[in-house]
Amino acid sequence: MNKQILLKSRPLGKPTAENFTITDAPAVSAKEGELVVKAKYISVDPYMRGRMSDAKSYIPPFEIDKAIEGGIVAVVTESRHPDFKIGDAVYASLQWKEVQVVAAGKVTKLDKNIAPLSYYLGILGMPGLTAYFGLLDIGKPLAGQTVVVSGAAGAVGIVVGQIARIKGCRVVGIAGSDEKNAYLSDELKFDAVINYHTTADMKEAIAKACPNGVDVYFDNVGGTISDAVIANINKGARIILCGQISTYNDMKALFGLRPQTTLLKKSALMQGFIVSNYASRFPEGVKQLSLWLGERKLSYHETIIQGFERLPEAFIGLFEGKNTGKSLVEIV
Amino acid sequence: MNKQILLKSRPLGKPTAENFTITDAPAVSAKEGELVVKAKYISVDPYMRGRMSDAKSYIPPFEIDKAIEGGIVAVVTESRHPDFKIGDAVYASLQWKEVQVVAAGKVTKLDKNIAPLSYYLGILGMPGLTAYFGLLDIGKPLAGQTVVVSGAAGAVGIVVGQIARIKGCRVVGIAGSDEKNAYLSDELKFDAVINYHTTADMKEAIAKACPNGVDVYFDNVGGTISDAVIANINKGARIILCGQISTYNDMKALFGLRPQTTLLKKSALMQGFIVSNYASRFPEGVKQLSLWLGERKLSYHETIIQGFERLPEAFIGLFEGKNTGKSLVEIV
Repeated sequence: MNKQILLKSRPLGKPTAENFTITDAPAVSAKEGELVVKAKYISVDPYMRGRMSDAKSYIPPFEIDKAIEGGIVAVVTESRHPDFKIGDAVYASLQWKEVQVVAAGKVTKLDKNIAPLSYYLGILGMPGLTAYFGLLDIGKPLAGQTVVVSGAAGAVGIVVGQIARIKGCRVVGIAGSDEKNAYLSDELKFDAVINYHTTADMKEAIAKACPNGVDVYFDNVGGTISDAVIANINKGARIILCGQISTYNDMKALFGLRPQTTLLKKSALMQGFIVSNYASRFPEGVKQLSLWLGERKLSYHETIIQGFERLPEAFIGLFEGKNTGKSLVEIV
Repeated sequence: MNKQILLKSRPLGKPTAENFTITDAPAVSAKEGELVVKAKYISVDPYMRGRMSDAKSYIPPFEIDKAIEGGIVAVVTESRHPDFKIGDAVYASLQWKEVQVVAAGKVTKLDKNIAPLSYYLGILGMPGLTAYFGLLDIGKPLAGQTVVVSGAAGAVGIVVGQIARIKGCRVVGIAGSDEKNAYLSDELKFDAVINYHTTADMKEAIAKACPNGVDVYFDNVGGTISDAVIANINKGARIILCGQISTYNDMKALFGLRPQTTLLKKSALMQGFIVSNYASRFPEGVKQLSLWLGERKLSYHETIIQGFERLPEAFIGLFEGKNTGKSLVEIV
């Protein structure tokens, strides 16, 4: 039996189980140049919330009553292309289906010897490359400078902070629980951590954690947390806009203190980006991240939920701040 | 008799005549290495409003009961330095005094043959260089792209728009009166102009004036006008933060729609700057602007008020939107 998960309705505010529906999908077979693939790991990522709204963005919205799409690691079960054989592991942007057909040109073959296959949805995939190119290409951190990252315990944040450490920066992480912050401090060796849930005056807490001010801010969250970081930036600071998760379910957070006056006074830069801007340089990023993993300079953490039918639960969990590191679903 | 103008009190909201006081200044004489200079043209600029508040910024605030400081073109009346003789014209950041003493190292000698001396407070001075470096270095406009400038009829805006035209861009100006816009269209050949005072839906008006979207936005004003421009930016747009005049007298304008979500969706850049960041390249800028002036590729407009005692009135006028081009005071 082949199952799929469809977007039943567009979430108003935080997504709920009612926004999804699980149905039977038809059996499939490959035509010339195609593969049949069986999902092994399915990624859940905050950016997917944007595709559930019908607002215009850098990628088109999901359609109602159509299968949701996202990053998937799958195994080839039927091949009509000479470059692929049964049992090959591949990555592609695919539908939330247990089994599906895909053009061979749309998948990337994965090397099981470099890292566990699930890593290609995280540290060696979209989140890792997002951290790598956003921090290094836009943030341009210099040794001795201070880098602040929000959403620090998330799939992107944990890589940002560790690369900044490799580059010799003071790294300050902002996350939403003491458990997450203990992981950032103890395992990843962040220099300071701030729990935004238990900190009354974020601006003051950041000033204290950053005695030399903030040179680079990698922003995954937006809203008032970012206001507090921006209030502490140095002249010539770089602010990397990667995500604005605080606003995804709450339209009110789109309004607040405009950053322009501070950017002007500090000759600071704010730059939005999406990892696909760097597609031509992905091999460079994967190579460097693999190297650091091999050298044990990068540590990694996954929250893996088992069972295809638990995809909605895993996705909703992203907005409940419960999970540390990369969240994904394993199909067992 | 030597006169000076002091900051009597910090403005709350829009500056008024009561914030200034005019008093007698002592007679001065030069020591070794110094000059005595007599002010000829005194610049009034929107950024000076910032120095009247006591908030921390890129330059320290003016002090109460001290003379205001700003850009001044003056004539040497006494010289104790071998490089200067009586009658030389110089530019410096000086006090609002008719006559004062200054270290020779702090002034720049001006060439009367290149342009009228007043131009060194405008198109060949701080505002012209601000337009030149901000637009070209941060905005990086390409031929065929669309450049929008707010505060378009001001000292910086008129230069921004004309440089963008020289670079082959479609140029759209936003200003506050039909008279100003007629000047921008008829004299400076802007492709489209928008009067924000008489336009109900700015977002729609900008969309109409920019059928291919906005690639570069040179922002002198901030607030809701900028919100409307930012709503129309293209992927990869560059937003140059030069001024936020709408917020200088109105703290409420600091709050509103945060631009981060749009910058993120559009992979767009927002960069604050101050012209002194480019100090090492000023000679390049002055040379190119002089060349364009000589070739009649740049046109220029000044609003000159005569009389030292009218400096407060000229400064206050900046925030009343009455003047076109560069505002300055001539000492007669």
